[in-house]
Amino acid sequence: MKIAILGYGNLGRGVEAAIKQNSDMELFAVFTRRNPETVKIQTENAKVLHIDDMLNYKDQIDVLVICGGSATDLPVQTPEYVKYFNVIDSFDTHAKIPEHFENVDKNAQNSGKIGIISVGWDPGMFSLARLYGNAILPNGNDYTFWGKGVSQGHSDAIRRIDGVVDARQYTIPVESAVNAVKNGETPEFTTRQKHTRECFVVVEDGADKNYIEKQIVTMPNYFADYDTTVHFITMEEMKRDHQGLPHGGTVIRSGKTGWDNQNNAIIEYNLKLDSNPEFTSSVLIAYARAAYRLNQKGEKGCKTVFDIPPALLSAQTPEELRKQLL
Amino acid sequence: MKIAILGYGNLGRGVEAAIKQNSDMELFAVFTRRNPETVKIQTENAKVLHIDDMLNYKDQIDVLVICGGSATDLPVQTPEYVKYFNVIDSFDTHAKIPEHFENVDKNAQNSGKIGIISVGWDPGMFSLARLYGNAILPNGNDYTFWGKGVSQGHSDAIRRIDGVVDARQYTIPVESAVNAVKNGETPEFTTRQKHTRECFVVVEDGADKNYIEKQIVTMPNYFADYDTTVHFITMEEMKRDHQGLPHGGTVIRSGKTGWDNQNNAIIEYNLKLDSNPEFTSSVLIAYARAAYRLNQKGEKGCKTVFDIPPALLSAQTPEELRKQLL
Repeated sequence: MKIAILGYGNLGRGVEAAIKQNSDMELFAVFTRRNPETVKIQTENAKVLHIDDMLNYKDQIDVLVICGGSATDLPVQTPEYVKYFNVIDSFDTHAKIPEHFENVDKNAQNSGKIGIISVGWDPGMFSLARLYGNAILPNGNDYTFWGKGVSQGHSDAIRRIDGVVDARQYTIPVESAVNAVKNGETPEFTTRQKHTRECFVVVEDGADKNYIEKQIVTMPNYFADYDTTVHFITMEEMKRDHQGLPHGGTVIRSGKTGWDNQNNAIIEYNLKLDSNPEFTSSVLIAYARAAYRLNQKGEKGCKTVFDIPPALLSAQTPEELRKQLL
Repeated sequence: MKIAILGYGNLGRGVEAAIKQNSDMELFAVFTRRNPETVKIQTENAKVLHIDDMLNYKDQIDVLVICGGSATDLPVQTPEYVKYFNVIDSFDTHAKIPEHFENVDKNAQNSGKIGIISVGWDPGMFSLARLYGNAILPNGNDYTFWGKGVSQGHSDAIRRIDGVVDARQYTIPVESAVNAVKNGETPEFTTRQKHTRECFVVVEDGADKNYIEKQIVTMPNYFADYDTTVHFITMEEMKRDHQGLPHGGTVIRSGKTGWDNQNNAIIEYNLKLDSNPEFTSSVLIAYARAAYRLNQKGEKGCKTVFDIPPALLSAQTPEELRKQLL
């Protein structure tokens, strides 16, 4: 299976590493908007090519993994490239998924290709946990907790404040809230009761720290609804202690079983990731295998993780899976 | 969707309760080997009928949920009844799944029906957790811990000892082992290091408790490889404290991501169930919906949880699922 990567940021590098772990795949090329000569990749024998040349290789690529951002890249790129390739993306603007689905589906139906969108962990594996939980326990409540992990959107928001040089924001689930749900309680939480936010901020010399702290903790949508802690640190501390992109979280379905709903059943799906982009990439690559197989079977159109039979993700045969993992 | 239940034990009663929670389904009938007049069910307007009359109703039943045992019932019943019905079973003899699959598939291919086998939580949801974990993190280790919960097979084994009136056996995961895996360690455990077994036993007046205890803790296959604790209790205590059938457990995939496998990624799927049979039944009913839909689409043959697109389990439409759960 020949895979191409479009975009070589954190996610693209993660996809490259994930391909290396899967012996039935190889990296054909990385496509970039930059000058290809300036992009150094890790894989021997794979090309670095300019995005403008991509269509020249359409018959040599089984699946294109699109590693752009959800704000401006993916809404354009995924519908466009599914005209020529089987594609996978990690589109994560939850509210716009239905629209993105329609745009990709229309072009995929015409081209006869497969486009699997919103692949990763949320949306992605967490969505699957919610779906399985809801289907099995229709009488129940959903809880999703994120973290502890770095939120890149919130870190960026802090960096845009005047006087801020660098910032890292950690989202932290409130332990007592998680434990209450795990113990079968079904509280209704406010935003503040579920997560706290912790910020590590490097500022310019002479910057007004009180002003910056106030700008952060009162920022609408991002911080105002949370208990937020701000730590001012040096650039040395930032580089020493905050270079990783860990993340994770927990999806819990807390439901009732029995004729009189007398029994609790609690389903928990939990991720603990040293590298958020590398894990997302690993999920993308498993679904790339499914996209290829579906297309080989003559299927076409836009799909999500909800539509994919789990066996298609695995390099093992159905017989091996039934024998070894069922 | 009209569902029929074959066998009205703990599992059959659980299926009846699960149907009540799903508004797109109704219980058509319970079929039994007993005299139907002696079987009292909870659902108004559903029939209790003898198993010998089942084929007379084959055109009125969308899915038959077979609630027999894996030792002798299911190997016969599932291949037989898939000749006439879409069927679901919870066949859980892991080593014999490939053979059972072949037997069901052959007859389902001929009849044009769907048979989904080995549905429940292990095999079932735990199998799915293993498959998704392996596909996403090919470089990793699998861990499955069971409990705390009642093992009915082990309880039965104790009851067969002379002088024992009743017994309940709890399987308990070793907390330090679970925590080591959750923390990213990848130890190789012996059987003894993963689980302990705790037994509550009621004996006849004058029985030799030392002898019985020794019979239990040295019993090959069941207890000899474990640290086993035996508590002798009264029948009153048994009835007061040990009437439930709780169970659960944890599947962990501990893997590596990154070009140099430098990062840990830990996926955990955890169940905590007040009622093991009711939860199994809830899973069966979600897959009954999938069986019906697959058959409506013209599909046939034997399937497992690995083959079923998750969206087919849910009463919601694909559009609703993408909007609300993705």
